[in-house]
This record gives sequence, structure tokens and C-alpha cells, in this order.
Amino acid sequence: MDFYYAPGTCALASHIALEQSGCAYRAHRVDFAREQQKQADYLRINPKGRVPALATARGVITETPAILFYIAQCAPEARLAPLDDPFCLAQVQSANAYLCATVHVASAHRGRGYRWADDAAAIESMKRKVRSNMIECFEFIERELMQGRWVMGDEYSISDPYLFTMSGLLVKDQIDIESFPKVAAHRRRMLQDRRVQKVLELEER
Amino acid sequence: MDFYYAPGTCALASHIALEQSGCAYRAHRVDFAREQQKQADYLRINPKGRVPALATARGVITETPAILFYIAQCAPEARLAPLDDPFCLAQVQSANAYLCATVHVASAHRGRGYRWADDAAAIESMKRKVRSNMIECFEFIERELMQGRWVMGDEYSISDPYLFTMSGLLVKDQIDIESFPKVAAHRRRMLQDRRVQKVLELEER
Repeated sequence: MDFYYAPGTCALASHIALEQSGCAYRAHRVDFAREQQKQADYLRINPKGRVPALATARGVITETPAILFYIAQCAPEARLAPLDDPFCLAQVQSANAYLCATVHVASAHRGRGYRWADDAAAIESMKRKVRSNMIECFEFIERELMQGRWVMGDEYSISDPYLFTMSGLLVKDQIDIESFPKVAAHRRRMLQDRRVQKVLELEER
Repeated sequence: MDFYYAPGTCALASHIALEQSGCAYRAHRVDFAREQQKQADYLRINPKGRVPALATARGVITETPAILFYIAQCAPEARLAPLDDPFCLAQVQSANAYLCATVHVASAHRGRGYRWADDAAAIESMKRKVRSNMIECFEFIERELMQGRWVMGDEYSISDPYLFTMSGLLVKDQIDIESFPKVAAHRRRMLQDRRVQKVLELEER
């Protein structure tokens, strides 16, 4: 499989899950500084002009929750999702949908407000609200979402690299992660995994 | 199962899928006019204070992509998702993630801009961009997402009631759905289903 990512994006979640899955893959960095994501070669892979994208023998998969779930299904022995338990699997999908459509969207209003308004004053106004929105999201995560040492409790899942990717955004809003003890402990636990370390080193190179 | 919805919300997608699944469920209307979604009784069901929510014997599921997938798994005989094909299932999840985190979010900036900015001018500015964003989303859906008569081609899936719910938003932005012939034909096809008709009649009552 061919995986397309850019450093500092939500592609990190899928990148970590791929590494943890044990599946064979090649990672390709998309150069956002040169706007490679908007060039014809990349748009043929992902017409959305975004990362992540996962090219498989049958076609390309986009959108983090879909890529994460595909990885989990391709490597059942890696136990990245409760594939045989529809209710638990729904909870994984619910957490991932929240991280995708609420948390990531809240954060995106800091650097990508131009998506939702054209004038500079409105874009500045959006930036000012990101911090309080992110605090609200992580209060919810701390109080309701985190079921134990991992997002789903005792069992590690594809929600964990996704939460790790989102909790990495807190520093950009100067939010002290220690205000959320479960999230902070989760982040430390993730950072102890040598496969997480490997992906971070590769992306930061 | 107990299903919580409010008319005119994205809960419609799950409501249709539930009806199509053949599963037994009770539908409960949450009265947004009286802000019932923010009251203690409802917050015990869904602490997010939103709809939809699906209460099962094992607990509550929130977030449309998760509820839709749960319904599909609970009623495999209704064939609402390609449960045995990880690649096709990933395409369903990808479509649903796009509808959730891009299309619905784009539309939400019309009526719920207060989520992302505090001042009135910024909220007005967001409203002005919703129409062009929704046109861009539906151009993508028309050109890339729609694989055939249904979102996934010949096979109906949980992406169909979700697209139907999102294409219903176009009228609010005075966008002519006929500009997107595949989406318009999809909408007509959905409206011919007596179970879709039943849910619409119940919600509009």
C-alpha cells in the first residue's frame, strides 16, 4: 500500500496505525510548502487535494476514520478495533467521528478559517474562539470519552492514534495538556510506543 | 432500541436507515424549540446535547456515521453496508466521513456560526460563504463520489440516506439541485421508497 502524508497534519493518526498494523506500506511525503497537494499528479491520487490518502490494489481511500478502519480490518491480528463486537465498534467509530467532525474542525478554524469566510476580520474572529472550543472539546474527552487507559478502556484501538494526533494540537493554542490528566497520561503512554516514536521521527525528519 | 431525533436535523439519515433495517425501535422527538436537548433528562442520554442518539441495551451511540454503521451491522439481511468487503466498506465510511465533517460542517456555518466565532459580523460573513462551499461540495459529490444510481454504485448503502439528508439542505441555500443531475436523480429515487416517505411524514407531522 502507498500512504500519502504531510507532517503536522491529521495523517499522523493513520501513519501510526499503519505502523502498528504490521502491514507492508510505503510512506510518501506530500510537500505542502510547494503546494504539491494541489498539483495534477497528486490530485489523480486524491481529488480532494488533502492528506491522508491510502492507495490500495483496489483503489484509493481518503478520510481518516475510513483509513483507520480499513487498516484495522486488514490486520485483524494487530487487534486495532473490536471487529467482532458491533456495539464496541460503534463506540470506536463514534469517537473517531467526534475527533474528525468536531475536534479537528474546531482546531482548523485557527489556520484554515478561509475555508468558511472570506474577509480577514471574520477569519481573525474565528481564530480567537479556537482556544475555548478546544478546551470544551477536551473537557468532554476527559469527562466522557476516555473509558480507561486507552480511549476504549483496557483495549487499544484506532481511536488512540487519532486522539494522540488531536491532543498534539493543544500546544498550538497554548493549552496546558496537564489540565486534562487522562489525556496527558494517554499522550505519555502513546509516546512510549517505539512504533509511534518511529513515525514521529520519520515525519519530523 | 430508542432513537432520539429532531425534525430538520441530520438525524433523518439514521431514522431512514433504522426504518429500512427492519429492526424494532421507538422514535422519540426531542423538542429543540423548548431546548429539550439541553435539559438534564436528555443530557443523561447524550451529554453532547445533540441528535441523533441511539439507545441500545448496552448503551448509547452518538454521531451519525457510527449510528448508521451500527444499524447496518445489526441487520445484515437488510444489506445496508458491504460488511464482508473491507475495501467497499472503507468507501462507505469515507463517503460518510466526508458528508459529516465537510458537507454538514459547511452547511452548519449558515445557522450555527456562533459555534466558531462570537461577533455578529463574523457570523454574517460565514453565512455568506455557505452557498459557494455547498456548491463546491456537491460538485465534488456529483463528479467523484456518486458511483452510480446509489452512492456506492449498484448497491444501496447507509451512505444513501446520509446523502439524501445532506442534499435536502441545498434548498436552504437556494441552490438548484438540478445543477447536479446525479444528486437530483438520487433524491427522486430515495423519495420513491415508502420507508423514506414514512419517516418524512412522521418527522414533518
